Amino acid sequence: MILIGERINGMFRDIREAIEKREPGPVAEWAKRQAQAGAHYLDISTGPAVAAEEQPAIVEWLVRTAQEAVGLPCCLDTVNPGAMEAGLRVHQGKAIINSTSADQERMDQFFPLAVRYGAAIIGLAMNERGVPKDAGDRLTLAMELVANADAHGIPMEDLFIDPLILPVNVAQEHAIEVLETIRQVKLLASPPPRTVVGLSNISQRARERSLINRTYLVMAMAAGLDAAILDVGDAALLDAIATANILLNREVYCDSFLKTFQKR
Amino acid sequence: MILIGERINGMFRDIREAIEKREPGPVAEWAKRQAQAGAHYLDISTGPAVAAEEQPAIVEWLVRTAQEAVGLPCCLDTVNPGAMEAGLRVHQGKAIINSTSADQERMDQFFPLAVRYGAAIIGLAMNERGVPKDAGDRLTLAMELVANADAHGIPMEDLFIDPLILPVNVAQEHAIEVLETIRQVKLLASPPPRTVVGLSNISQRARERSLINRTYLVMAMAAGLDAAILDVGDAALLDAIATANILLNREVYCDSFLKTFQKR
Repeated sequence: MILIGERINGMFRDIREAIEKREPGPVAEWAKRQAQAGAHYLDISTGPAVAAEEQPAIVEWLVRTAQEAVGLPCCLDTVNPGAMEAGLRVHQGKAIINSTSADQERMDQFFPLAVRYGAAIIGLAMNERGVPKDAGDRLTLAMELVANADAHGIPMEDLFIDPLILPVNVAQEHAIEVLETIRQVKLLASPPPRTVVGLSNISQRARERSLINRTYLVMAMAAGLDAAILDVGDAALLDAIATANILLNREVYCDSFLKTFQKR
Repeated sequence: MILIGERINGMFRDIREAIEKREPGPVAEWAKRQAQAGAHYLDISTGPAVAAEEQPAIVEWLVRTAQEAVGLPCCLDTVNPGAMEAGLRVHQGKAIINSTSADQERMDQFFPLAVRYGAAIIGLAMNERGVPKDAGDRLTLAMELVANADAHGIPMEDLFIDPLILPVNVAQEHAIEVLETIRQVKLLASPPPRTVVGLSNISQRARERSLINRTYLVMAMAAGLDAAILDVGDAALLDAIATANILLNREVYCDSFLKTFQKR
């Protein structure tokens, strides 16, 4: 499981304020804290408060600040192609572009960026008509993402399909459709694309967020999930991942499997 | 999810001692405690310490004692056909026979008992050659159980296939095979048989037993599991079940979904 730390995001107040003041402290702090907790990538998002014309400079600043604090690669989270390219230009190592949808226009913008900068890319199973209702329609869009990525020469291991989790408290029937999509995406190509979810979305505005998040992640891992954007500071979530790794035979069992996972 | 309380079992010292002294207190106490915690059935097992010739009388006594304490039906857990019949004879309501294997001799003994007493029955995916290594061989045995049950006129909803969980610390590769078996058993017949596991076996002699148990149960539920013999006194396990029910769209989400589950 690839763990992408969700915390450097302008939706959180401390990061929003750090962006406003161009104060590097909180960004560097969360970069370090998430690296220490086991993140493999840092998601980087300005959040919705930043005006479009300011976004390129801010994404660039966030990437520089985070990567000066720790050596981790970033998952650049913006719908703004200019901001995406500004971030990719200064990024050290192999980034993840987060994201393109299955709109032709977006795919034509973002897949070439992945090629130009040697980045991996997340493809959302949605298009201009929104998020599909069931697994079948999600898979149709995933297939369009696969075909377009392939046409650009992007290897399938660099394409992460995101079937799009919706909050369980308002769109409860989507949760099992996403699980089914994760399972079936693996049949779309050989080798197959990888899969990723933005985990915290499942519990937006729900109570018992950590319990819902970890229960759903375990199900998604059993369905074959490869990566997740999540709260690496949630110790119970990380214990669930370590335990799922053992039960799915991805790590060799030892009595101290929780500690072994933490050490990595 | 059908919850079968595991606690009235001679493997636990207090029950073993209660059996030795024919002291009803601990049996009645565990019957009540498990009913209160949400058990739908009470598993009843003498444990291995009781001699074969004593077993019929003891199973009969355990069933009477448990059912006098609470109105729940029992899951009669013995390989001894005489003890099984002694228990069924005094049992009130619809029992579950736990269990037959896929040995022809055993199926010829136990399926007629299910018919005679109108009981459901658990069929283990093993035979005289032991527990299969992979899902395919488990499914072959499940198919034999399905065919034999059907030949006796047992409806598929009364047949519970148990794919047999082994301890993850010594037979780690079996855990995913069991998940795959649970998924595919549903394709064996229409309507399909149901599935059950003896959950605690996954964590025998492991550390972090509760964490392993609940993580695995969530995966099994996502694969379609219908029932489990488990520790209904494990509050974290019951919270995981309640959460899985919500995420799998089996219960309607409400903010107090944990309390709603507890109340049932």
